[in-house]
Amino acid sequence: MPKYLLMDKAELNEEYKKLSDTYAEYKAQGLSLNMARGKPGEEQLNISNDMLYTITPETVFQTADCPDCRNYGGLTGIQEARQLFADMLGVHEKNVFIGGNSSLNMMFDTIACMMEQGNSGEKPWNQQGTIKFLCPAPGYDRHFGVTQYFGIEMITVPMTENGPDMDVVEKLVADDASIKGIWCVPKYSNPQGITYSDETVKRFAALKPAAKDFRIMWDNAYIIHDINDTPDSLLNIFDEVKKTGNEDMVFEFCSTSKITFPGAGVAALAASETNLEILKKRYNFQTIGYDKINMLRHVNYFKNLDGILAHMQKHRAILEPRFNMVTDMLEKELSGLGVASWTKPNGGYFVSVDVLDGCAKRVVELCKKAGVELTGAGATYPYGNDPKDSNIRVAPTYPPVEELQKAMEIFCVCVKLAAIEKIGK
Amino acid sequence: MPKYLLMDKAELNEEYKKLSDTYAEYKAQGLSLNMARGKPGEEQLNISNDMLYTITPETVFQTADCPDCRNYGGLTGIQEARQLFADMLGVHEKNVFIGGNSSLNMMFDTIACMMEQGNSGEKPWNQQGTIKFLCPAPGYDRHFGVTQYFGIEMITVPMTENGPDMDVVEKLVADDASIKGIWCVPKYSNPQGITYSDETVKRFAALKPAAKDFRIMWDNAYIIHDINDTPDSLLNIFDEVKKTGNEDMVFEFCSTSKITFPGAGVAALAASETNLEILKKRYNFQTIGYDKINMLRHVNYFKNLDGILAHMQKHRAILEPRFNMVTDMLEKELSGLGVASWTKPNGGYFVSVDVLDGCAKRVVELCKKAGVELTGAGATYPYGNDPKDSNIRVAPTYPPVEELQKAMEIFCVCVKLAAIEKIGK
Repeated sequence: MPKYLLMDKAELNEEYKKLSDTYAEYKAQGLSLNMARGKPGEEQLNISNDMLYTITPETVFQTADCPDCRNYGGLTGIQEARQLFADMLGVHEKNVFIGGNSSLNMMFDTIACMMEQGNSGEKPWNQQGTIKFLCPAPGYDRHFGVTQYFGIEMITVPMTENGPDMDVVEKLVADDASIKGIWCVPKYSNPQGITYSDETVKRFAALKPAAKDFRIMWDNAYIIHDINDTPDSLLNIFDEVKKTGNEDMVFEFCSTSKITFPGAGVAALAASETNLEILKKRYNFQTIGYDKINMLRHVNYFKNLDGILAHMQKHRAILEPRFNMVTDMLEKELSGLGVASWTKPNGGYFVSVDVLDGCAKRVVELCKKAGVELTGAGATYPYGNDPKDSNIRVAPTYPPVEELQKAMEIFCVCVKLAAIEKIGK
Repeated sequence: MPKYLLMDKAELNEEYKKLSDTYAEYKAQGLSLNMARGKPGEEQLNISNDMLYTITPETVFQTADCPDCRNYGGLTGIQEARQLFADMLGVHEKNVFIGGNSSLNMMFDTIACMMEQGNSGEKPWNQQGTIKFLCPAPGYDRHFGVTQYFGIEMITVPMTENGPDMDVVEKLVADDASIKGIWCVPKYSNPQGITYSDETVKRFAALKPAAKDFRIMWDNAYIIHDINDTPDSLLNIFDEVKKTGNEDMVFEFCSTSKITFPGAGVAALAASETNLEILKKRYNFQTIGYDKINMLRHVNYFKNLDGILAHMQKHRAILEPRFNMVTDMLEKELSGLGVASWTKPNGGYFVSVDVLDGCAKRVVELCKKAGVELTGAGATYPYGNDPKDSNIRVAPTYPPVEELQKAMEIFCVCVKLAAIEKIGK
């Protein structure tokens, strides 16, 4: 297939006309397809239904450290659940705090805690004037939302194929004591599906921030969310910070939202004992404890980490063909045109597509008019502002397969249309 | 039985000796009894177990406004749950927001939201210098804890048999614009079991605070938690504020923590649409949504308000004899001695006992040494400081009945011992 950039005006015009006809046909179908959010599809939800039936008249509600998990108490969760997450994260059970149904909420509360209480002997963040966070981008829009809610200034850090550009990170945190943290999705990053290299993790662990109260928000959302036979592996950040004496620098988060149910899963964080004490001061006023029966459901259903990993194979069986469909379609329709590049991740929930500079908004707009909803262009950047207007996050998990196929066909047509508009017909 | 105050030294001495012997006998038993927290007992937990089995392979997860309540979305909860709480609170469904498992957490988040965002066009509370809250006392220690966490100054307001002393409340809020709110448990108040009179509720609704951003935290924790045939009734605060145009002045909270399971129930708040918009701004960053499957469990189990009210009869059947045992024992052991007064509530979770001034700490200490744990003396006052050191909160719901009986026997002995020590033997 000829590269668009090599075409002359007449050829481009002809191609544009052909694509416009195809586009018009799709548009006439009055479709309503959604590739916007990283939501599991119905088939995925179904595989966890059995967990909902694990509480039976035979269930014993007494657990290792809880006399009756139907009652109040147990701020950090039941021991069995802490152990399950500890095994998943590769940390000690005493470093785990189990929360409610949302790791995002735990991240929000952690930032709130630092804002109001502070840490490492420094003043609370909200008493330090302007403070800043590093935001590797493209990244997760809801991370940026939390930072913005608290009035924290965001500094974009470029992503590389090995994770955030560590030269930039190291320099910024060493120079500027008003930089208090960084958002990371270290495995199968949202949206690119990049896993941080060993070197990147080691450099994170060895950071020497000017701010004593600098914190890494390590959102390990896709820690075991592989989708094929060649999964990525990620170094354990807590093993690394132990070597560098930086144990207090990291908060790690994860949840079962995309293992069992979004909204009815269990979230957890791991942190040094010092950091946990700080957090507990807040949580102790905030709640009497989280839903221990739902923790018990998870524990009873999975038994142990092997149980979770076996369960993830069922997710993989559903997701692998979907991701293949998306990347195959991109390959087939866009390869060699010089109008887009994309990632082919081994896990996670997204495929990240970079279209020609200045074209992302237009592609999203064209898709929308043809009934295909995508994540808003720019959403993957702080303040919703993608300086190149080129990144688009594609979420292949939610729509039924036949809809996904059609949505991707339309998406590719829109990428080409926008590209020709940009190149100039 | 003679009043202690009429006894001469020799009589008091003899009585003290006799009581000391009894006390020593109890102490020798090495007991471990707990009347500290308002936790439901095991028998109460058992009556809700069936709710845990209401999700079955036949369950339909699509609800009125949610395509699949196993998935993300639905920040304010499922419509059916909002309706259930709306019926309970006597408000419109559109004024209800369903949260996680803890109304305390919703109160904490509401205060946090006012601190960081503000309301009624005023600056956020945390940008207004010293701000204050009115705390009717004796009251709920965890309310005071939240206020203290956020550095809000607490002003004690005396309780009367009709609720907070409204002369004091009206004057303080009218005079001082730094007073931003008040904590209320309007029905079966914690710990006295007092229900606010119609006049009190009307006076609350008609408040004219100097601060435009003044808010009433109306914690209706025991809204349907009657324990006998003569339940109290409480005016609907939202009906009243509609008449006075003060709709934005009230946040109302409740939960099913003491209807189904503490920790695995569902919490909710009711507020004006303006206030809900303010809260949603925060919640929208904080979470993607709460556990809708647990909402569905409650909806499927109870069907409607009548289902909940029928369920409360089962709680009542368990609680009524316990409360009677406590108040009968107080009557039998302490009546006429002039050393204690107490409430005889028609609902709620506590009996409040006022011992001689300066004796509450001593009673709690004596009980503790004999193996009976009570809520710490002073806990029912802001900063844990009961100026008269006289109020003790007794929680009759948690211990097994035979333990409750023994605990109360010991409690009465301790009240008498402390009284004689105070009077002077």
